[in-house]
Amino acid sequence: MNKRGFASDNNSGVHPEIIQAIIEANEGHTVAYGDDPYTERAKQKFNELFGSDIDLYFVFIGTAANVLGLHAATRSWNAVICAETAHINVDECGAPEKYNGFKLLSVHTPDGKLTVDLVKKHMHGFGFEHHSQPKIISITQATEMGTVYTPEEIKKLADYAHDNNMYLHMDGARIANAAVSLGMDFKAFTKDAGVDILSFGGTKNGMMYGEAIVFFNTQLGEDFKYVRKQGMQLASKMRFISAQFERYLSDNLWRKNAEHSNKMAKLLETKIKEIPQIKITQKVEANGVFAILPSRELIEDLTKEYFFYDWDESRNEVRWMCSFDTQKEDILNFVELLKNKLNS
Amino acid sequence: MNKRGFASDNNSGVHPEIIQAIIEANEGHTVAYGDDPYTERAKQKFNELFGSDIDLYFVFIGTAANVLGLHAATRSWNAVICAETAHINVDECGAPEKYNGFKLLSVHTPDGKLTVDLVKKHMHGFGFEHHSQPKIISITQATEMGTVYTPEEIKKLADYAHDNNMYLHMDGARIANAAVSLGMDFKAFTKDAGVDILSFGGTKNGMMYGEAIVFFNTQLGEDFKYVRKQGMQLASKMRFISAQFERYLSDNLWRKNAEHSNKMAKLLETKIKEIPQIKITQKVEANGVFAILPSRELIEDLTKEYFFYDWDESRNEVRWMCSFDTQKEDILNFVELLKNKLNS
Amino acid sequence: MNKRGFASDNNSGVHPEIIQAIIEANEGHTVAYGDDPYTERAKQKFNELFGSDIDLYFVFIGTAANVLGLHAATRSWNAVICAETAHINVDECGAPEKYNGFKLLSVHTPDGKLTVDLVKKHMHGFGFEHHSQPKIISITQATEMGTVYTPEEIKKLADYAHDNNMYLHMDGARIANAAVSLGMDFKAFTKDAGVDILSFGGTKNGMMYGEAIVFFNTQLGEDFKYVRKQGMQLASKMRFISAQFERYLSDNLWRKNAEHSNKMAKLLETKIKEIPQIKITQKVEANGVFAILPSRELIEDLTKEYFFYDWDESRNEVRWMCSFDTQKEDILNFVELLKNKLNS
Amino acid sequence: MNKRGFASDNNSGVHPEIIQAIIEANEGHTVAYGDDPYTERAKQKFNELFGSDIDLYFVFIGTAANVLGLHAATRSWNAVICAETAHINVDECGAPEKYNGFKLLSVHTPDGKLTVDLVKKHMHGFGFEHHSQPKIISITQATEMGTVYTPEEIKKLADYAHDNNMYLHMDGARIANAAVSLGMDFKAFTKDAGVDILSFGGTKNGMMYGEAIVFFNTQLGEDFKYVRKQGMQLASKMRFISAQFERYLSDNLWRKNAEHSNKMAKLLETKIKEIPQIKITQKVEANGVFAILPSRELIEDLTKEYFFYDWDESRNEVRWMCSFDTQKEDILNFVELLKNKLNS
Repeated sequence: MNKRGFASDNNSGVHPEIIQAIIEANEGHTVAYGDDPYTERAKQKFNELFGSDIDLYFVFIGTAANVLGLHAATRSWNAVICAETAHINVDECGAPEKYNGFKLLSVHTPDGKLTVDLVKKHMHGFGFEHHSQPKIISITQATEMGTVYTPEEIKKLADYAHDNNMYLHMDGARIANAAVSLGMDFKAFTKDAGVDILSFGGTKNGMMYGEAIVFFNTQLGEDFKYVRKQGMQLASKMRFISAQFERYLSDNLWRKNAEHSNKMAKLLETKIKEIPQIKITQKVEANGVFAILPSRELIEDLTKEYFFYDWDESRNEVRWMCSFDTQKEDILNFVELLKNKLNS
Repeated sequence: MNKRGFASDNNSGVHPEIIQAIIEANEGHTVAYGDDPYTERAKQKFNELFGSDIDLYFVFIGTAANVLGLHAATRSWNAVICAETAHINVDECGAPEKYNGFKLLSVHTPDGKLTVDLVKKHMHGFGFEHHSQPKIISITQATEMGTVYTPEEIKKLADYAHDNNMYLHMDGARIANAAVSLGMDFKAFTKDAGVDILSFGGTKNGMMYGEAIVFFNTQLGEDFKYVRKQGMQLASKMRFISAQFERYLSDNLWRKNAEHSNKMAKLLETKIKEIPQIKITQKVEANGVFAILPSRELIEDLTKEYFFYDWDESRNEVRWMCSFDTQKEDILNFVELLKNKLNS
Repeated sequence: MNKRGFASDNNSGVHPEIIQAIIEANEGHTVAYGDDPYTERAKQKFNELFGSDIDLYFVFIGTAANVLGLHAATRSWNAVICAETAHINVDECGAPEKYNGFKLLSVHTPDGKLTVDLVKKHMHGFGFEHHSQPKIISITQATEMGTVYTPEEIKKLADYAHDNNMYLHMDGARIANAAVSLGMDFKAFTKDAGVDILSFGGTKNGMMYGEAIVFFNTQLGEDFKYVRKQGMQLASKMRFISAQFERYLSDNLWRKNAEHSNKMAKLLETKIKEIPQIKITQKVEANGVFAILPSRELIEDLTKEYFFYDWDESRNEVRWMCSFDTQKEDILNFVELLKNKLNS
Repeated sequence: MNKRGFASDNNSGVHPEIIQAIIEANEGHTVAYGDDPYTERAKQKFNELFGSDIDLYFVFIGTAANVLGLHAATRSWNAVICAETAHINVDECGAPEKYNGFKLLSVHTPDGKLTVDLVKKHMHGFGFEHHSQPKIISITQATEMGTVYTPEEIKKLADYAHDNNMYLHMDGARIANAAVSLGMDFKAFTKDAGVDILSFGGTKNGMMYGEAIVFFNTQLGEDFKYVRKQGMQLASKMRFISAQFERYLSDNLWRKNAEHSNKMAKLLETKIKEIPQIKITQKVEANGVFAILPSRELIEDLTKEYFFYDWDESRNEVRWMCSFDTQKEDILNFVELLKNKLNS
C-alpha cells in the first residue's frame, strides 16, 4: 500500500466514483475526438455551472490548459503579466514562451495574489513597437501559495484589464478548493467577476487526467479546435475525459472532495499552530499549508516518513498539501512525529 | 449500447484488462510525474522487449510522440522526409512544423511506403544554407494504407539515412499490428533494423491513452525530459499510463489484440473479394482495408448504419478499420448489408 | 574589376543613382526607426503607385518580406499554397515554417505559375481540425522560372482565394521585370488584380538592400509594426532604406533598370536560339533564361569564365540571369565562348 | 539640414569614410551571400582583433545579432539570465522568446551591470524538468545605463557561467565605447575574459547597417550559417556590409569615433554637474548621460529643440546620448539652453 504524504494533491490517486464513470463509459464504439454523447453530457454539466454562452475544450493537463488558453488571446508580440510564483512562470519549463512566443512579465507578490497596483509596474510601452504589448493578466485561483482571491479582487483586475484592452485569465488548477473556501459556486468568481479565459482543473481534486479550457469571451474560442489539435491536446478516446468530468460535476463530487482537502489543511494548520517553533507563513485558505521549520535536519528527517517539498530552501520553508483522500490520522500522526522530532 | 463500426481503431473502447490495471494502480499516494514503481515496472517491460540500452518516455498521444520524438533529433533548419500519406503530414494540423519549426518534405508513394529511391527526390542541397537540411526519414509501421514494411525494407532506409548523417524515425501507432503481420517481435524490425526513434503506440490497440517514445539512439534522449515537459506531455498522475503499459506488454495482451484485429481485417478482405463490384486497393497486411465502391450513394447508405471514413472521395475509395473488439458478426452483418444494398 | 556573370541579379552592385541618394541622405541627425522625412517621402512614392489606401513597411530582405508578410494573415494552424519552385519553398531554409509555424503546401507546375486547377489539389479539409487550414495562395511575379503572370491569371487566383476566405500573396522580388514585361504599371497586376499582400523587391534591380511589404488589405497591416520589430527587420537608420526607395521610384529608375535586364535576357535568348545543341526550356518573359546544355563538361568549362548556376543538374539545365548592369558585350562574348566550346 | 540631438547614437548618420568604402565596393559583379573578397578582407580584420580561432557572421542589426547568437547556444527549454534593463529584455519586442522559445530571467541591477551575486537569484532548479534550465548569462558592454564592465568583472561572470555549464554572451552594441573607456583593445575584455558569444556592433558608432556575431567558442558556430539564413539575416549583397566593417576596423576609425562620442558625454557631464538642480544618476563611462531634471515641463521644453528620450518618467530621469558626430557646440548650446530655462 502506497503511503499518503503531503507532497502534492496530484500524488493522490483517483476518486472511486471517477473510476466507476470510466468503467461505465467503456462499452462499444463511439466517434473519436469528441463528437460523442459522453462529451455532450459533460458539456451540459459545464453549461449548468456557467450558462450556455461559453466555449469549452478538454485537454490532458493543466499546463496545456494554461498555454493553449493563453494562445487563444495573444500573438507573439504580446506579454502576459503574472505573479512571480505563478505556475505558468515557474513550473511549466518555459512552455508558455515556447508555444506562444510571447513574453511573461512577472511581479513579486507577498501572497501569490496580483493586485492592480502590482500589475501597474508592467503597464507601459503601449503602442511602442520595441516593447512587448501586455495583453493578458493571469491569476491563479486558489494561488500557488494556498491563498484565495475574493470575487471583488478578481473583478478589480478584470475591470482593469478590460479598461486597457486586455483579458483576464485564471489558472484554476485548484478552482474547486477556491470555490469551497469562498462558499460560492464557480460562476460567481469567474464569469461574473469578468474572467475571460479559465483553466478548469480536475486532476488535483480526484480525477485521473483531463482539464477544461472555458472561454467566457467566446470570440476567443473561435478557431480553438485547431489550436488544441496542433497543440497536441486532442484526445482520440475523448469519452474517457468527458465521462470523468460528467461524474466530477455531478452530485457535488467536486465539492465534497475539495471540502475535505481544505478541511484537512485547516486541521493541519490548527495543530501546527500549537507548536511554537514552527511559523506558518501564508493564510490557509485552500488545501495547502506553508511553514518555516527550525532546521534543515528536521525537514530531512520528516521527509523520510512523509513526502513533501521544500518551498524556499534558503529559509527552511516547506509546503504541505492535503488531498481529497488525506485522512485525519495522516495529519495527527504527522504532527505527532513532528513534535517528537522537535522534542528529541 | 454503442454500435461498433469501421471508422477507426480508436473508436473502440479499452480492453478490460487495461481497465483492471488502472483500478489496481489506484491506491494510496505515489510520487507524481513518473518517479514511481508503476513506471519503473513498465520500463522493465520495455527493456524486456528492446534491451536495457534504450531511453523511454511516456506521453499522452501519438501526435505528441511523433512531434516530440522528431524534436529530439532536429533543429529548425532541418527537414524531415515522409510519405505524402504520413500521419505527421496530413493528420496533425501542422503540429510538426509549428512545434519544431522544420520543413516536412513529402513523397508520393503507391502504398504508403517509402523506399530509398523515393526518398532520393529530396536528398540534395546538403551544406547549402538556403535549403532546409534533411535530417530524418520518417516511416509509419504499419502504414496509414494498411501495409507493412519488412525488416529488410526498413534496414535499407536506416542504412541510407545513416550513410547520409540522418536518422530513421518510425511512427508505430499500429506497431502491434505490424509485428503480428510480420510474425516477429518488435525488436526485429525496429532496433535491429536500425530505427533511431520510435513512437510506440498503444491507444489504437486497446489502451485508454498513453504512447511511448523509445530512443534506440540514446544520445537523442539526453535532454528529453525537458522536451516532454515543455511539450505539455508530462502526466502528473503518470502511474495510470504506466500501469496500462505494464499490463499491455504482459501475457501477450498486445499480441492477442492485434492478432484479432488483423484477423478481422483479413476476414473482411476475403468477404469483400467475393463482391465483384468492389475493388480492394491496398494489400491487407494489418487491420485496415481500403476499397473502391461503385457509388457515392452506396457509401452514404452504408455509413448510416456502420460508421467509416472516405479515403479518397474523388474515386469513392473508403477505409475500413478493424479493432481489437471487432466481432466476426460485425463483419458478416456489414458485408451482408453491403451485398443487399448492391443488389437492391 | 569584378567580372560580370549570369549567376544572379543580386551579384550585381548598386545603381549609381541609388548610391547618390544614400550620400544625400547622410546629413545630420534624424529620428531612428522610420519616423523621419525620408521615409515619409518614400511612402509618398508608393502612394503614387498604389493609392493612399495601402499599409507599407520596409524590411531588409526579400525572405523577410515574404515570411513576415505571410505572418500577418495566418496563424500557425494555417497552410500556404505555393509552387514547388517558389522561393518561399526552396530558398529560405524553412524560414516560413520556422517563423510562422504553418504548413507550406507545394504544387508541381510546368512553368513556375500556379493556376486555380493546380491549387485545387490542396483545397480540402476545411473545418477539419486534423488538417492545416489553407489561408493563403502565394505566387511569384516574375516567377522563379522567368515567366510572368498576366493580370487576368492573377485575378483568377485572387477571386478563387477570396471565394474561399483566403488571401493572395505575391512575392515581387522581380516585380519590376514583370511590370516591364507586361508593359503595365505595378498597380494593374497587383492591387487591381486582387493581390492582398505584396513583397515589393528592389535589391535585385539596382538597390543595395531594402524591400517593402505592401498590404492592399490594410486590416492585415494593423499590428504589423510589432511583427516587423519582433521579426528582427526594423532598421535603426531607416532613412537609408527609404532614400533608396524614394530614388528607385523616381524618374522611372526602376523601369529603366528592368527594361535593360529584360532586354539583355531577350538578346541572350535570341543568340542562344541560333545554337541547335542548346534547348531553351522556359519562355523568356523577364530577365532569366533557362536552357539545357549538351554536357556537364561544357557547363563546368563555362562557369570557369562566367559564373552561373545549375538549375536541374539531372538534365544539365542551367539558369542565366541578366542584371541592370549586364552589357551587350557580356552577352556576345559569352555566346561566342559557348559556340567555341561547342565547336572545339 | 537635420539638427543633431541627444536621442540616440543611431539617430546620427554614417561616417564619411564608411560611405566612401561603400562607393568603392560598388563595382562589377561579385558572388552574393558572402563568398566574396570584401567579406574575406573584413574577416581578416576581425582575425587581427581576435585571432584566427573565431567564427564570424554578419547580420543586419543588433537585435538579430543578439537573438541569433543566443539561439546558437540554447534550446527552447533553456533560460537566459540578463539585467532587467538589458536590450534583449526591454527593447526587442520579445524577439528572443519568439525566435528561441526560451525564457528570459531578468535581475534588477543598480547600474545595468550583472554580478555573480545578482545572477545567483536564478541559479536553481538545475535538472528539474519543470524548470527552464539556465544556459546563458547575457551582459551588455557598454551597458544600457552608460556604465562599463571591467575585464575582471567579466571574467568573474564567465568563470561562474562555465563552472555551471553555461555560456557568457555579450551584447556589444556599444563595444567600441567600452573599449575606449577601458583603454583596451576588444580582445582583452571579450575573448580573454571568457566571453563565448559576442554581438559586435557598428551601427551606433558610424556604420550604416551591419553587425557581427563572433563565436569565441567556435563549436557554437558550427551550423550557424543555417541559423542566419533561416533567421532572415543573410544579406544578398553582403559585400556592402563587409566593406563597411573592413573600413570601420581600419586606421582606428572605430576608435576615433568612440573616443569622440565618449569625450562629448564627459563634456556634457562636466557641464551638467555645474547645475545644482540636476542630478546625474549613473557613472558616465561611455557615451550616455543619465540625469534627473527638476520638472516635466522643463523636459518637454527642451525636447522641442533637442530631441532626447525619457528614461524613467516617474522621476523625470532622462537619457542623453552622444554620437560620433556630436559637436562641442551642440553640448554647449544645449547646456546654455538648459540653464536659461532653469533661470527663467
